[in-house]
Amino acid sequence: MKNRQWLLAAHPQGPATHDTWRLAEGQVGEPGPGQILVKTHWLSLDPYMRGRINPGANYTAGVRLGQVMQGGGVGEVIASNHPGWKVGDIAEAMTLGWQEYAVLTPDLPGVARVNRVDPKLAEPQAYLSWLGMPGITAYIGMLEIGRPKPGDTVVVSAASGAVGQIVGQIAKMSGARAVAIASTDEKLDYCRSIGFDATINYRTTQDLRAAIAEACPRGVDVFFDNTGGPIHDAVMMNLATFARVVICGRIAVVDKPADEDIGLRSSARLIVTRSTVQGLVVFDWWHRREEAIGRLASWNRDGRLTFKEDVLHGFERVPEAFVRMMAGQNFGKQLVKLVEA
Amino acid sequence: MKNRQWLLAAHPQGPATHDTWRLAEGQVGEPGPGQILVKTHWLSLDPYMRGRINPGANYTAGVRLGQVMQGGGVGEVIASNHPGWKVGDIAEAMTLGWQEYAVLTPDLPGVARVNRVDPKLAEPQAYLSWLGMPGITAYIGMLEIGRPKPGDTVVVSAASGAVGQIVGQIAKMSGARAVAIASTDEKLDYCRSIGFDATINYRTTQDLRAAIAEACPRGVDVFFDNTGGPIHDAVMMNLATFARVVICGRIAVVDKPADEDIGLRSSARLIVTRSTVQGLVVFDWWHRREEAIGRLASWNRDGRLTFKEDVLHGFERVPEAFVRMMAGQNFGKQLVKLVEA
Repeated sequence: MKNRQWLLAAHPQGPATHDTWRLAEGQVGEPGPGQILVKTHWLSLDPYMRGRINPGANYTAGVRLGQVMQGGGVGEVIASNHPGWKVGDIAEAMTLGWQEYAVLTPDLPGVARVNRVDPKLAEPQAYLSWLGMPGITAYIGMLEIGRPKPGDTVVVSAASGAVGQIVGQIAKMSGARAVAIASTDEKLDYCRSIGFDATINYRTTQDLRAAIAEACPRGVDVFFDNTGGPIHDAVMMNLATFARVVICGRIAVVDKPADEDIGLRSSARLIVTRSTVQGLVVFDWWHRREEAIGRLASWNRDGRLTFKEDVLHGFERVPEAFVRMMAGQNFGKQLVKLVEA
Repeated sequence: MKNRQWLLAAHPQGPATHDTWRLAEGQVGEPGPGQILVKTHWLSLDPYMRGRINPGANYTAGVRLGQVMQGGGVGEVIASNHPGWKVGDIAEAMTLGWQEYAVLTPDLPGVARVNRVDPKLAEPQAYLSWLGMPGITAYIGMLEIGRPKPGDTVVVSAASGAVGQIVGQIAKMSGARAVAIASTDEKLDYCRSIGFDATINYRTTQDLRAAIAEACPRGVDVFFDNTGGPIHDAVMMNLATFARVVICGRIAVVDKPADEDIGLRSSARLIVTRSTVQGLVVFDWWHRREEAIGRLASWNRDGRLTFKEDVLHGFERVPEAFVRMMAGQNFGKQLVKLVEA
């Protein structure tokens, strides 16, 4: 039994391309004591993965050349040497990697833990999107940093993306106004359909700062930033007093080195508005995963939380899925489905 | 009896100059019911005043052309129509203005209140420096936003300035290491003499980012930023995990419009380090003035808090004092003394 794998072929300078990885065939491993063998059904593509293929250090170790590309996914247990897991169980793991089969150690601590997928709660791939890392990111980012109050105005960049669409719905549940920024009218139509009150197409808007001022006449109380770059600058110039800014992602500038992210510092607005800006890495909050999943699932049952996926089919398309996600060509959470039902 | 006053003559484009104000002679007012007449002894020059002479709105209303320049000071009550104040009392007021005599209403709320100077606590001009607005700024900025812990590394820009020198001493009292950034070796010698552990001359240092990394081998836990600009960028690239950044001042870029403060956005460092950046306006915390003054005074009595002033003499030198303070040519808290003992 062969195990196809995508290995890191080069640390990209600038955007990743299909040549960033190469397809290889390895062996399927044997689960040792306390381990399981998982067949990958779904892989998740997320912007944080761009940071993992830099040669330098990020908040966690990156992928070395020749290693299997890191990435989370969902799969089926096809062999088990762990008393708590049996064949046929569905597992979600951040440590799955871009491969068709993985030997995993379920009881590792924290982010490395293998999580059980409850098929009664949702389709298994939900554990990669609104019940998984993006959902928990939106949940914690809003509840712990953004802290929207009734009547607040919440602006979300990449609003139809995996995190953004949940942020907008939590804003509405919190009694706040939600303003979406995205790249196409089709994405913005979707944002309106899930409750966003106002939308801004940043590609067709001449004066983004003025458009945000118009959409947010009393200023921006919560800015959930998934993009960085010029969108970030335009929102920062519209902060309300005592605003909260969640720095969650920076997909607009992530291909540049950190010391080349040049633009508006906004220090005048920060002082004038006494705003708080905070970086968010969801894995710091992984101990609250169960709480977040429980709440997200109940919101979904109540009909208050919906979610849009963008699925490509076939293991060979994983790099393509990553590249299009980084270019903003996906519409909804980017997934790859390996095994068709 | 004549009342010399400095009136705003022009909203400066770029740095303020002597021509930003013009000297005028007005009448000395009569205190109405509940008012006092104060003869100015000391005037305080502070960077926040630059924001007050912009034509646009800041966090509070600015000075209009032809109006007396705003600014705090200390003076002696020479006539009173208020039961709680008598001739000879010493008063401190943010509302004194650049004039030799002022009619004040002591019982206005908040920042507009006239404060009593306790001559037993300190020299009266201390109420403009370490017992006044700069002292309270350092106190609140460190206790509420910076929150230094024992073993933390605290970096302060404009470290020998009115706020910076107190920040450094509070860092040391908190068990933290304190690193000073300033413009001359003389200023940095002073910083060492009051307890700073390491110093960086930003004018003579080739690679500021590397110098900070060397002075802060485990990163910067608290960055108390009084300058903004390139110093800000260099420190931001050295933040430790879960750092706190106090955006207190931006004297390096304050002469530019807010949307021209261009430089490093630091979003990568903010995410990687999960840092918090917060703007500080001390007047939000004015209800804690008494607490801050009490604590600062006790630290001074204990010998744990010292302070350096830079005094010019004569009312005619007030604009000159402002211009040199904005250019960083002062050494210690900039004051003007109007009445010699």
